[in-house]
Amino acid sequence: MNDCIFCKIVRGEIPCHKIYEDEKAIAFLDISPLSKGHTLVIPKEHSENIFDITEEDLCHIMKVIKKISSKIMNTYTPEGIVIRQNNGEKAGQSVFHTHFHIKPVFNGTTVVSEIEHRKEISKEDMKVICEELSMLD
Amino acid sequence: MNDCIFCKIVRGEIPCHKIYEDEKAIAFLDISPLSKGHTLVIPKEHSENIFDITEEDLCHIMKVIKKISSKIMNTYTPEGIVIRQNNGEKAGQSVFHTHFHIKPVFNGTTVVSEIEHRKEISKEDMKVICEELSMLD
Repeated sequence: MNDCIFCKIVRGEIPCHKIYEDEKAIAFLDISPLSKGHTLVIPKEHSENIFDITEEDLCHIMKVIKKISSKIMNTYTPEGIVIRQNNGEKAGQSVFHTHFHIKPVFNGTTVVSEIEHRKEISKEDMKVICEELSMLD
Repeated sequence: MNDCIFCKIVRGEIPCHKIYEDEKAIAFLDISPLSKGHTLVIPKEHSENIFDITEEDLCHIMKVIKKISSKIMNTYTPEGIVIRQNNGEKAGQSVFHTHFHIKPVFNGTTVVSEIEHRKEISKEDMKVICEELSMLD
């Protein structure tokens, strides 16, 4: 998938704030986070969505999500965490490479207000969060 | 978990509009749906959330979600499907038994407006949807 932005991230052709990587998956900070620690987890192998991802990749991704959710909870102690995966543009999918959002919830923000308030975040802040959440060796 | 409402549903002590069941999981229609076909998928074994569910249950649930998402897509052809799992009250979790939402998106409704508009639905309509989506033998 030459034109897929997430495939390019997997191949290292586009930079990202990576916090996790193994043979089948990577996780990196959302570039326009809904909250501190907002992370995307993706399979390395391209699939578009829940319909064409392999069961193997799906299982693997979920195990990674479980690990990263614990890492975020232990690091930032949010009040909650939302796991979300969008299929189709109308469902909120903007990159057509299967990805799961891990969205920490802070300060009693409702999910609605979170959705409405994607935050601008500085490169410096992104770097700090990336270091704090890194599970890379 | 004697007092858990989803454990009671698993044990058949509380009715639900069940559309799928196997040895480890069940799926049933959300009683206050965000959209037609809004379904919950839960493990039979009690866990509270992403932090304490077993990896085995997590993998299994995702495979079930994949199957049911396809069933919903083939039956109602929504424009998209959102998969969502809430951890903690502030993240929108109201029943503390791990559950994943499968939320079909119709007519270009944004996710925000969907969240704000949980619909009342008649028992008759629930029954029809349950029959249309049933994957039970």
